[in-house]
Amino acid sequence: MYDAIIIGAGPAGLAAAVYLARQKLTFLILTGDIGGQTLWSTDVEDYLGFHLLNGADLVKKFREHLVDYEGGYELHEGELVQKIEKSPSSQEGVEGVFSVTTAKSSYGTKSILLATGTKHRELNVPGEKEFYGKGVTYCATCDAPLFRDKKVYVIGGGNSAMDAALFLEKYTKDITIVTVNRELAGDAVLLSKINASANIHIRPLTKTTKIIGNSFVTGIGFIGPDGVEQTDACQGVLIEIGLVPATSFVDIVAKDRWNQVIIDKQNRTNIPGIFAAGDATDVTQKQIAVAVGEGSKAALELIRYLQTTHV
Amino acid sequence: MYDAIIIGAGPAGLAAAVYLARQKLTFLILTGDIGGQTLWSTDVEDYLGFHLLNGADLVKKFREHLVDYEGGYELHEGELVQKIEKSPSSQEGVEGVFSVTTAKSSYGTKSILLATGTKHRELNVPGEKEFYGKGVTYCATCDAPLFRDKKVYVIGGGNSAMDAALFLEKYTKDITIVTVNRELAGDAVLLSKINASANIHIRPLTKTTKIIGNSFVTGIGFIGPDGVEQTDACQGVLIEIGLVPATSFVDIVAKDRWNQVIIDKQNRTNIPGIFAAGDATDVTQKQIAVAVGEGSKAALELIRYLQTTHV
Repeated sequence: MYDAIIIGAGPAGLAAAVYLARQKLTFLILTGDIGGQTLWSTDVEDYLGFHLLNGADLVKKFREHLVDYEGGYELHEGELVQKIEKSPSSQEGVEGVFSVTTAKSSYGTKSILLATGTKHRELNVPGEKEFYGKGVTYCATCDAPLFRDKKVYVIGGGNSAMDAALFLEKYTKDITIVTVNRELAGDAVLLSKINASANIHIRPLTKTTKIIGNSFVTGIGFIGPDGVEQTDACQGVLIEIGLVPATSFVDIVAKDRWNQVIIDKQNRTNIPGIFAAGDATDVTQKQIAVAVGEGSKAALELIRYLQTTHV
Repeated sequence: MYDAIIIGAGPAGLAAAVYLARQKLTFLILTGDIGGQTLWSTDVEDYLGFHLLNGADLVKKFREHLVDYEGGYELHEGELVQKIEKSPSSQEGVEGVFSVTTAKSSYGTKSILLATGTKHRELNVPGEKEFYGKGVTYCATCDAPLFRDKKVYVIGGGNSAMDAALFLEKYTKDITIVTVNRELAGDAVLLSKINASANIHIRPLTKTTKIIGNSFVTGIGFIGPDGVEQTDACQGVLIEIGLVPATSFVDIVAKDRWNQVIIDKQNRTNIPGIFAAGDATDVTQKQIAVAVGEGSKAALELIRYLQTTHV
């Protein structure tokens, strides 16, 4: 039986872990990766005390911080949670004991901190899953070098799609942005760079219908303003249509219509003993500094909860 | 007319300043000092990414971060705000234009971020103000060296009083803790150190009544359990009776009964255009990491407010 299980190890989960470790709680971190979206950030300029660090370097600093407390907690990287359930309490008068289930095992805990962050939104078209990692990617900074001198489609109509296209331009001169909207929308600076580029083409009012290939992506299908489906050859498809909360496995607590976990000012969900922090919640600002603050706050509230309910 | 005025430059105010500067807003920071309570922290171990830094060094990092944006904002250090008022709008349809008054001047602004943090609670006894800096102090780490081999009274019954007494013990062997409570209360580790010390004496159920002196503190008056006022000679009085929000000049927004500014999850006060963050608010956790997160969140909400109301 753990005092707490932290689900997710981005800025919110890691900040919480520091507090729980300092309190010498027995806790487990279950996470896909360490760093979350921060890993994919090119420059992080707004986390107070650090300037102009790239995301991966900042995550390294975060990891170093946690190493101080090694031995005080368990970290299972690559172990994703499938289900959270309230288990019947084994002890009289003890509230909220939970079981957290992964593909590997099931763990008992007195409290839970949800810090699963966000993941890339999927297009949900044929070929997307099949060719993921074989020409289909959600991360320009990770995979752009693979597309050197290739023809690449970028799917999306906002800042991240524009950012991605401009980043890709360092590697290739044949980039097409596909958006369902009438025009690209976002920062004026990005828009003018896109418009000034001879290498970046735009297909507005166009819906991607499929991704085709053999062992690797060979083309893309879409329907443009004329309503006729057509295909075009390409070697890469970069999908940048936004982020969604990584909360699909969470049905024990209340979520809003965007699947964000609803929290109060003390980071409590509607279930006593389950707290949440960071981008997976309905906190309005999805920022590293905010996630760190929220994770710290949630951890301290969780500690207080344990002190008052599990003496 | 500024876009924003940030009042206070502790972790919350500085984190906010980074966001406003990056947005190229025209803003002013009015503050007593840079760093706030962080300056007085001995060790900061829980701000993610930094470990085992003392407070002053962390503040140095914060300042360095802000230097990147120099020229983009004005910083008036040592200029304390006396009053905030809503001024009649000079422009049709523009909401919430405020005037912020200090001893030196009055400034117009479209929005305000309150980040004044906390200050030491005062005893409110005769002599306290008179001998402040002349034997009366609220900061053990700052002033303990002044009390080498002197007789010192520590006023307070909690962790900070115990911390202070143990810190003073490095300099002097005649320390008396005065508390109105029946016994000291706080961390078990601190209590056992205090009890084990031959240099630290405790006067429980005792109320401090006055501080006496000439050019410097020479004694203290108090009433113990017998109800009789007595005095004792001493050369120092260290007051550690907690922190209060530095919000006495703020009467334009709603505060709770502890004088904390009431905010919602988006760091809005009850007055549109006035935001608040950090220890001066009713956020439950008074921590550097939390204040940085809250300051960042408040700044982003303020930016959004300006974008929607002051186009």
